[in-house]
Amino acid sequence: MLNRIVYVNGDYINEHDAKVSIFDRGFLFADAVYEVTAVVNGHLIENEGHMNRLARSCNELELTLPVTIEELTHIQQELIRLNQLDEGGIYLQLSRGTAGDRDFAYPQNIQPTLVLFTQARSLLDSPKAKKGMKVVTIEDIRWHRRDIKTVQLLAPCMAKQFALSQGYDDAWLTEGGYITEGSSNNAYIVTEHNTVVTRPLSRDILHGITRQALLDLGAKHAIKIEERLFTPEEAMHAKEAFISSATTFVYPVVEINDQPIGDGKPGPIAKQLRDIYIDLVKRQSAS
Amino acid sequence: MLNRIVYVNGDYINEHDAKVSIFDRGFLFADAVYEVTAVVNGHLIENEGHMNRLARSCNELELTLPVTIEELTHIQQELIRLNQLDEGGIYLQLSRGTAGDRDFAYPQNIQPTLVLFTQARSLLDSPKAKKGMKVVTIEDIRWHRRDIKTVQLLAPCMAKQFALSQGYDDAWLTEGGYITEGSSNNAYIVTEHNTVVTRPLSRDILHGITRQALLDLGAKHAIKIEERLFTPEEAMHAKEAFISSATTFVYPVVEINDQPIGDGKPGPIAKQLRDIYIDLVKRQSAS
Repeated sequence: MLNRIVYVNGDYINEHDAKVSIFDRGFLFADAVYEVTAVVNGHLIENEGHMNRLARSCNELELTLPVTIEELTHIQQELIRLNQLDEGGIYLQLSRGTAGDRDFAYPQNIQPTLVLFTQARSLLDSPKAKKGMKVVTIEDIRWHRRDIKTVQLLAPCMAKQFALSQGYDDAWLTEGGYITEGSSNNAYIVTEHNTVVTRPLSRDILHGITRQALLDLGAKHAIKIEERLFTPEEAMHAKEAFISSATTFVYPVVEINDQPIGDGKPGPIAKQLRDIYIDLVKRQSAS
Repeated sequence: MLNRIVYVNGDYINEHDAKVSIFDRGFLFADAVYEVTAVVNGHLIENEGHMNRLARSCNELELTLPVTIEELTHIQQELIRLNQLDEGGIYLQLSRGTAGDRDFAYPQNIQPTLVLFTQARSLLDSPKAKKGMKVVTIEDIRWHRRDIKTVQLLAPCMAKQFALSQGYDDAWLTEGGYITEGSSNNAYIVTEHNTVVTRPLSRDILHGITRQALLDLGAKHAIKIEERLFTPEEAMHAKEAFISSATTFVYPVVEINDQPIGDGKPGPIAKQLRDIYIDLVKRQSAS
């Protein structure tokens, strides 16, 4: 594989030369936010939603974007071009920048650090979309502002690592007896009356861009979607279960805590939602 | 000020050349642990405790130290020598390292990233030790493994920044109606019967090395210390209040939520504990 060209603070450089100071607050304090936008056929998918959420994350943390959203989109497109990226994602991270020394309080008048890189990956054609995922529920130990998309991702890393080490594909997180979300995706179940259930927005979960698109698409296609809390027990006895995220789109969940969901095969509503989301992706990626 | 010499993965280099890859998991996932050891008279203070806690943090996260504790201590001492550090601290950070790409699960067979740097600072003679601190209580929104000393420090940064912006010196964090600890220090109050009260160890607080030293010293000096929960209300009406950390030692707290503590001046037990801790520091730093 050829080396990627990545973006760091104004420069398009070889990935092996892409570095930040050890005094960068992203490295020392996890004082940084990020976004991942899917790319299909060389086009950005739902990027406006990601840019809006980025602006919101910045606002919550008094972080200032060093470039406009238009310039940011240009950088994304330039990276797609330079790396001839057809399908995959673009990762974007903004940290508060490099202060002269380590101090918890926000330093004033420093330049933020902006980093972007591409990740080539098959999105439309995915084995997990066909086969489905097996998830295990574990306690959600993350901080209490999960609506801000920060790089404080050690708990999700631990959750994912634990799930894989135990033979599962991912973890669903629980708090106070209810599912919050997956380790890096939103979680859904389908009731016996074919109603899709997903947790309402709050500081407890990430406000998924794909989640919002699915809610909008569901309404258009007469799929009933209810935003409410649900327990692991309800999930284990649901008719279907699935997850969504920017780069997985929709993946069915076929087992929760070793309990087959429905008949243990990907369900029709998850499949339908994946299909209509992919229709949207194809419209956005047509050129 | 001359540029510092810092340590990055085996090299002693100028601080302006000290960089890590943008793919370092410390930068992307806050997948890193750290320690700060005080330095007085060019000597490391309570370093064995810090090294033990570092080993414990690594163990909890399946992180592997790339050098022995003896080698680590040698690096610390070399940085003290190269930077002619008399008083201040040595910061040490170990991240899981740089994987080829971004993926939540722990990558196998990668080299961890080890970074150390010095910070010159007056410790024995501190204005805040004489004057005392004003703190404000705010909700503790951190993750639920605060016993692991990770760089997921955005919540403490936000707390500190909020406190400063409102005219306080620091924040004390509350959870379920009780104080957990300060933004980067352990919290104590003194009851009307001269008993020092501090929260017991659990996953809810950092297991302070200075805290443990104070508990040991208190026992030797017949200072009653009780480990139990306490509320902001109890704290606001305490006879004294104070904090401890590796580089502040002991600072009195003279106001909580604008309420003067005792007579609003640093209290005698906080002063006594600071004095006997400084005696220990002086013994460890004599040469």
